[in-house]
Amino acid sequence: MTQPIDIPVSKIEILKSELPKNCWTQDIDIIAPHLTEWRDKYFGKTPLMLTPRCTQDVSDAVKLCAEHRISIMPQGGNTGLVGGNTPMGEVLITLKHMTRIREINTTANSLIVEAGAVLQNVLDAADAENRKFPMTLSSQGSCTVGGVLSTNAGGNHVLKYGTTKELVFGVEAVLPNGDIFNGLTNLRKDNTGYDLNRLFLGAEGTLGIITAASLKLFPKPKYVQRALIGLDSVEAAISLLEDFRAGGRLAMFEVMPAIGYHAVIDGFDSIRDPFDTSYAWYLLCDWEVESEAEGMTLAENILGKAFEAKKVLDAVIAQNETQAADILSIREHMSAGQKFLGGSVKHDITVPIDKIPEFFRLADAKMQEVVPGCRPVGFGHFGDGNIHYNIAQPEGADKKEFLANWDALSQPIFDICDALGGSISAEHGIGTMKFDDLAQRASPTKYALLKAIKRAIDPERIMNPRVMV
Amino acid sequence: MTQPIDIPVSKIEILKSELPKNCWTQDIDIIAPHLTEWRDKYFGKTPLMLTPRCTQDVSDAVKLCAEHRISIMPQGGNTGLVGGNTPMGEVLITLKHMTRIREINTTANSLIVEAGAVLQNVLDAADAENRKFPMTLSSQGSCTVGGVLSTNAGGNHVLKYGTTKELVFGVEAVLPNGDIFNGLTNLRKDNTGYDLNRLFLGAEGTLGIITAASLKLFPKPKYVQRALIGLDSVEAAISLLEDFRAGGRLAMFEVMPAIGYHAVIDGFDSIRDPFDTSYAWYLLCDWEVESEAEGMTLAENILGKAFEAKKVLDAVIAQNETQAADILSIREHMSAGQKFLGGSVKHDITVPIDKIPEFFRLADAKMQEVVPGCRPVGFGHFGDGNIHYNIAQPEGADKKEFLANWDALSQPIFDICDALGGSISAEHGIGTMKFDDLAQRASPTKYALLKAIKRAIDPERIMNPRVMV
Repeated sequence: MTQPIDIPVSKIEILKSELPKNCWTQDIDIIAPHLTEWRDKYFGKTPLMLTPRCTQDVSDAVKLCAEHRISIMPQGGNTGLVGGNTPMGEVLITLKHMTRIREINTTANSLIVEAGAVLQNVLDAADAENRKFPMTLSSQGSCTVGGVLSTNAGGNHVLKYGTTKELVFGVEAVLPNGDIFNGLTNLRKDNTGYDLNRLFLGAEGTLGIITAASLKLFPKPKYVQRALIGLDSVEAAISLLEDFRAGGRLAMFEVMPAIGYHAVIDGFDSIRDPFDTSYAWYLLCDWEVESEAEGMTLAENILGKAFEAKKVLDAVIAQNETQAADILSIREHMSAGQKFLGGSVKHDITVPIDKIPEFFRLADAKMQEVVPGCRPVGFGHFGDGNIHYNIAQPEGADKKEFLANWDALSQPIFDICDALGGSISAEHGIGTMKFDDLAQRASPTKYALLKAIKRAIDPERIMNPRVMV
Repeated sequence: MTQPIDIPVSKIEILKSELPKNCWTQDIDIIAPHLTEWRDKYFGKTPLMLTPRCTQDVSDAVKLCAEHRISIMPQGGNTGLVGGNTPMGEVLITLKHMTRIREINTTANSLIVEAGAVLQNVLDAADAENRKFPMTLSSQGSCTVGGVLSTNAGGNHVLKYGTTKELVFGVEAVLPNGDIFNGLTNLRKDNTGYDLNRLFLGAEGTLGIITAASLKLFPKPKYVQRALIGLDSVEAAISLLEDFRAGGRLAMFEVMPAIGYHAVIDGFDSIRDPFDTSYAWYLLCDWEVESEAEGMTLAENILGKAFEAKKVLDAVIAQNETQAADILSIREHMSAGQKFLGGSVKHDITVPIDKIPEFFRLADAKMQEVVPGCRPVGFGHFGDGNIHYNIAQPEGADKKEFLANWDALSQPIFDICDALGGSISAEHGIGTMKFDDLAQRASPTKYALLKAIKRAIDPERIMNPRVMV
């Protein structure tokens, strides 16, 4: 693990004296919310928080930091999950004052927005133009565009639209030397050199600071047909994928195990179970269609076929928006619902889709070896091979004692991922949390390439030096 | 322009003595077809052609070249259009002996194939599994996967599926030091570091040699509805885009001007005009649907609305596969048909979609200033903002004399692209042809980044040193 950063007071004084007064703060009350994160897993410190108002402000600040070799950590909505957004001595730079939507182009289907804009505002702006920006995350009301892009966030719509990376034409970014890279295009084709824009996406702020982005908009589907399905196995879920996605309408394929499902139903008064019986697994699907009638026909056809093939035990086809929202609510509370099960060791992994059943066989067995009685809750975006494989403590166990097993539980999971050709980080990223894991588990060739790129663009390691690589 | 390469004979002798006999040739008859390209625009030379049989062969050869600082040019199907595939003294390395499809996974919808495989074979293999690999190019019968990926080829399906870059899970590539990078995943989510795979896509062989790739397959649409539409202006074409793409079914949106259209109709006996009248512009559309009935209903609805809005003058909805093939044939012969107009100066540019009409106004006028009487033939993928803006010689002019104006005609086009926020290379790439243009027209910040990445990964400039950057 990389060490905390210690910046001499004299350097901080230079920043304070050279930068405009509205571009920095040392006010503890203002800074405090930026130093911890919502799960209270990381607590940080910073000698100074930069508060730029525009791209030029960011450039000026970074130039000065580069000149004096001052480490910087950029922060968006502070909703990250891997410690990549909690400073440990770095100068913190928050983009929260840069929130403007600069341009919407409904012919090119593009939207240019500053990095500090909250995702929900982008979703609303697209919607107002009868367009869809296909990114839904539980944190969409507080996460920012810059953070979403820097972490290559996933979410529920990856299946149809891809991860964040696929949803971006290009970015404006301030490089570690303070220069401004302008990739704010809306061109769907541009073969003039390496894909520089792409480098900044998912780079977790280690190659520069994304200050704005040109996002891809899509035609808004006229109707979304939702269904919730009861299954007897995870194999059954995977076996449905091919028929469900035929026609390219499938936009969500989320799977939940009984233990997680019932924790939500039992724990939250506002949420009810649309089924009378309990099933081992639950599958939530969305199809994006052009009319309510088309949605109903499609769902009935697809599910009818699945019933006949005995792959499905029960199903609820949402009849209206309220029912659809109620069903989605169960899935959206899966993370929160796990608190009712006590302490939880969380993983965000991918395996090849056809290896998901094998993953569960191997991982479930291994977890029992490490902590007998622990309760795996593996749910999430199975259509993308992405499992949030969380391990709840054994019933009645001591939470703190259980959480002390974090690494002992995680390393075998990562081993299984590696063996199955999976990834130890599907959508949350590396941050500080998996810094050592990446170093140890990436192939030497891959790791050397990562380091070569970091060195090429940030030779002084000014940008987020404790993060990723 | 970069200079030809001169490799001392002693170094070539080292390669010959150290590498297996079946991994190189100096046979002139075997090498000759690799030294020129189909338009006879570039003629090259090479002291040695490497003919590896497997990835390890490539690695061994590149390691040796790195050790002795021998420049290498990789070549696929030799269908490139920007001089990036014609050696001028480099050791040539052809991937044509590496053609194996290593794996097809119909659950993950992925296909792993070696770089030398001809694109058509991949299309067929996907089709045999009831899958679609959405890449259609006029050269698909001879271009190879490695070349397609290295140039980030476009084609007719970009509108719905994106350029090549979007169709790739990852690559296996031999780096300039001979190390093998293995990115052959089928994971739709993997947030473990910078997007290394993406760096090799569109890199034109300057960062390493792609030896294999994991490609994304898609559900095969059950029916493709095609229509050909007569229009009075390019503005009309652009105004149709929104309604035509609603519902996400639109998979082709190709525009042709009367001059190019009639050159094809008049020039090729086998191709006939489905219309009785001539129109100023023609639009060819595909919608991917689930049944013939759905296709007909959709086309009739969309076109009916467009007729009512007086945006469309005439339309033919393909009634069967033969009609559909006949219509596509016109578009497919657009490049070839221009030979009937004499000499042609070709451009492959993009502008933001809403700027296409403005581009034509500016460019058409400017061309008349440079060569009075010249005949612009701007056609192509307008749904992506991509125009193949070719300038045919004035009627009766001397071909050679006209072609001497290549640069004088091109530079103003590039100026207009730059001014409109476009790109001087949409899908063909930079190669040697636009090496100087990129250097002069890219922003200093962008160009510095390109060079930094090249230097980081290929510090000795061994890989395709005369190409791109």
